Amino acid sequence: MNDPSLRDVADWWATAVSRVEPDRIELRGRPVQDLIGTISFTDAIWLMLRGDTPTPGRRRLLEAALVSSVDHGPHAPSIAVARMAATCGIGLNNAVATGVNLLGDVHGGAGEQCMRMLAEIAAGADAAEVVDRWRATSRYLPGFGHRFHTVDPRRDPLLTLVEQAVTDGVVQGDYLRAAQAVERILAVGRRRPVPINIDGCTAVVYGELGFAPPLARGLFVLSRSVGILAHAWEETGQGRRNKGPIPPSILPTHLGDDPCTGEDSTPT
Amino acid sequence: MNDPSLRDVADWWATAVSRVEPDRIELRGRPVQDLIGTISFTDAIWLMLRGDTPTPGRRRLLEAALVSSVDHGPHAPSIAVARMAATCGIGLNNAVATGVNLLGDVHGGAGEQCMRMLAEIAAGADAAEVVDRWRATSRYLPGFGHRFHTVDPRRDPLLTLVEQAVTDGVVQGDYLRAAQAVERILAVGRRRPVPINIDGCTAVVYGELGFAPPLARGLFVLSRSVGILAHAWEETGQGRRNKGPIPPSILPTHLGDDPCTGEDSTPT
Amino acid sequence: MNDPSLRDVADWWATAVSRVEPDRIELRGRPVQDLIGTISFTDAIWLMLRGDTPTPGRRRLLEAALVSSVDHGPHAPSIAVARMAATCGIGLNNAVATGVNLLGDVHGGAGEQCMRMLAEIAAGADAAEVVDRWRATSRYLPGFGHRFHTVDPRRDPLLTLVEQAVTDGVVQGDYLRAAQAVERILAVGRRRPVPINIDGCTAVVYGELGFAPPLARGLFVLSRSVGILAHAWEETGQGRRNKGPIPPSILPTHLGDDPCTGEDSTPT
Amino acid sequence: MNDPSLRDVADWWATAVSRVEPDRIELRGRPVQDLIGTISFTDAIWLMLRGDTPTPGRRRLLEAALVSSVDHGPHAPSIAVARMAATCGIGLNNAVATGVNLLGDVHGGAGEQCMRMLAEIAAGADAAEVVDRWRATSRYLPGFGHRFHTVDPRRDPLLTLVEQAVTDGVVQGDYLRAAQAVERILAVGRRRPVPINIDGCTAVVYGELGFAPPLARGLFVLSRSVGILAHAWEETGQGRRNKGPIPPSILPTHLGDDPCTGEDSTPT
Repeated sequence: MNDPSLRDVADWWATAVSRVEPDRIELRGRPVQDLIGTISFTDAIWLMLRGDTPTPGRRRLLEAALVSSVDHGPHAPSIAVARMAATCGIGLNNAVATGVNLLGDVHGGAGEQCMRMLAEIAAGADAAEVVDRWRATSRYLPGFGHRFHTVDPRRDPLLTLVEQAVTDGVVQGDYLRAAQAVERILAVGRRRPVPINIDGCTAVVYGELGFAPPLARGLFVLSRSVGILAHAWEETGQGRRNKGPIPPSILPTHLGDDPCTGEDSTPT
Repeated sequence: MNDPSLRDVADWWATAVSRVEPDRIELRGRPVQDLIGTISFTDAIWLMLRGDTPTPGRRRLLEAALVSSVDHGPHAPSIAVARMAATCGIGLNNAVATGVNLLGDVHGGAGEQCMRMLAEIAAGADAAEVVDRWRATSRYLPGFGHRFHTVDPRRDPLLTLVEQAVTDGVVQGDYLRAAQAVERILAVGRRRPVPINIDGCTAVVYGELGFAPPLARGLFVLSRSVGILAHAWEETGQGRRNKGPIPPSILPTHLGDDPCTGEDSTPT
Repeated sequence: MNDPSLRDVADWWATAVSRVEPDRIELRGRPVQDLIGTISFTDAIWLMLRGDTPTPGRRRLLEAALVSSVDHGPHAPSIAVARMAATCGIGLNNAVATGVNLLGDVHGGAGEQCMRMLAEIAAGADAAEVVDRWRATSRYLPGFGHRFHTVDPRRDPLLTLVEQAVTDGVVQGDYLRAAQAVERILAVGRRRPVPINIDGCTAVVYGELGFAPPLARGLFVLSRSVGILAHAWEETGQGRRNKGPIPPSILPTHLGDDPCTGEDSTPT
Repeated sequence: MNDPSLRDVADWWATAVSRVEPDRIELRGRPVQDLIGTISFTDAIWLMLRGDTPTPGRRRLLEAALVSSVDHGPHAPSIAVARMAATCGIGLNNAVATGVNLLGDVHGGAGEQCMRMLAEIAAGADAAEVVDRWRATSRYLPGFGHRFHTVDPRRDPLLTLVEQAVTDGVVQGDYLRAAQAVERILAVGRRRPVPINIDGCTAVVYGELGFAPPLARGLFVLSRSVGILAHAWEETGQGRRNKGPIPPSILPTHLGDDPCTGEDSTPT
């Protein structure tokens, strides 16, 4: 290790996102006082992640995607845990953090994976080959199918908005066409096709708008935080303490034999 | 305990926030497909928390407050911990949750406390008496003063927007007047007055808009999540692993004597 | 602000807990290589929080308290949320953190509050007066009563161990006597008395051992983390994805009218 | 979906870890009152994860591994964020959860990966071939090398304990021999060899004890929680509010150009 300097300390926290000094706050190079009252919250999201503000057509797509994912009810683990957290004597911020923490690879993260898959097709790869390859690694194709909905009610309005945006020259349509190709492939030989789901639809929007795949998850986090907050807040008003997942009078089934110990199955 | 029924199980998770059934998603009674493409993300936030959508004048105030708090740079613990989290091999959602978890009573929660204080004054209590009482419980008056800024650059644009909204009949101005009264009291006999800070300014906005005090914290969480995400994402691109708070070549000072043991000071 | 120095940076992270330098790790002044293989994990907990290691009699009490709180089944919100988290595609560490985050003022934090109450009595205050005062601020007396158990099966073995330790001169018994006094007060005129619960029993142990009240919560966190981990790990082996709180075929009751909006009830 | 029953609800939360009913608490089939005062905290950890209690020789190894990882000072992100969290007005449980949340694939998770690698060798695969394959996927071989220590002071005492346990017939030694083989391979042709680090040493212990690889991370979480708690508690006593990562007088370097936008690099 070399001798450090104060400059090394300052550099350790170097950032282009914001500049905060006494009496000065700039976000992506723009004084915050010029932004307050002039840009929308959605513009601010775009600005912070991308460094500029969106055109009206692009903003509209981003608004739509953010609106579409805010909530999926108490069956969504992110919503349920936030409601339970709100009854345990911790802050509303802690309850929201609890919910957001669950938005992982399986719960919302599918948008990121779907975007990567669609990006391959958008870049020219054969859709059927890509689908086969992704299917080989997982029984769930990210962004397609839903355990709950036959047709996700969010699909049509989102894809229609993207189609219109392609027509209007707002976006290019590569991700939309990729997603449609995957839907067609998944429909072959099935009575009940596997439609694109909300993770897939928003992956199309975010891909068309040029966001990097990990930000599909990041934007989903911002969106779902709204529902998490609304549910945690409603729960607060219902007055329960230490809310468990089911009424206390129902006892969890006791598994007499141990199906899952910490013992390793690899030979030692 | 009485015998439970399936209805009890359904009731255990009763909610008015959303209704999610196969092929049906309603947010506060409105089908999601009617919202996508027609309302803004800020409208969706209001809808989920309040049950209706805001007038244009009220939306504008909410947008402004949400935009104003997105970021305060790496000196803000919420931002710093999210950046560090992003280097530890966890998801972007986990990094955001880590930052949001810190937005407690001292870091953002002051807005909630400030709103309660201003609500007392807005309800008719004597401002000086209220300030004295709050000061008696804490050396920090919630929503006033800043360790960093002399005048917070976010103050004037936010308060100006509220003043205009009062003039336009959008809001009533009770919280604004209460905050101004507190500022005047704090200025008496000081060369450098203690101006309202961002927690206080947004408390004014949220109070004027009729939000309950805990939602001052909740809305701050939604706003700051944007900056937390942007910083965590930037850090991801910088490639560090296990980023500590200072360069590794600087060793923390070792405190030879133990200033803070787990031992209790109460007599046993 | 003065000009900072590198010493200021080192001092910013000053600590007496550990000293970590290249090829050197000391915990509370003791080289880690001298501790590995010679002290127990419980000793290490004591060492890190207190700066020394416990006598055998004190270690035994700490072991007992830590063992007693490891789990309370899926009805405990901390356990349930960790199980749900484990199905969302996040790390086992994230699942444990999710559970630990819920151990707040209402869920485990009662130990801290109970310790403060018992400390008042241990310091000489009148027990009945103290109980009355605490009851005036909350309908739940921290550390007493249980929504689930008539007599908590953990009560007798824990209190018996403390009694023996008092007899053996290991601890002084002030917290034990305070808790017994509260139990007697709560039994007056009731057919079914309100017995001390696990939060109260462990508060007695931690108080007798001289821990500060906030560490009652801290030690509960260490203990419950074990059950949280065991449940999250078991859930991982059961293969569910996105586990909600109830089977997906049961739809949450829809509340037609809105019982809890974000609207404030204070007059504006 | 079939019609659900109350049995389905009970089964949804089925567990073999514990059985909690009114006035009854069993951990892995053993009444909690039989465990309090009779088993150590480390025994309880083993019991909850494995379903039985360890032999004295095995307990000793587990104690040693748990003791070894409790802390690595404020340079460890898990420690630093917990200290910062403790200054933000949230509970000690929330501060610990914040730290634990960071123990991901890069920060502690290496133990899990190392265990998988050693398990391959322990199962008979050629060590050099295994090392080459793992190196091909990452520039960091999990469990080997340290950015800070030349020789980790925790290495020798841990490996010596395992060697003794092999001699005593407590464990078989497959993981130990695998780790030693990897160390030899990494030493070839280097002046400064790449020694096994703490993640690797504890992976050896946990592997010898028959834990599944994900529990290497899980047990690390339990161990490091102790240091996280001790540091958060010490910080609480130092009285800072909103502690950032560096003294406030040092301003983070502003990156004039934007090195990391949210824009995707894949062609659209």
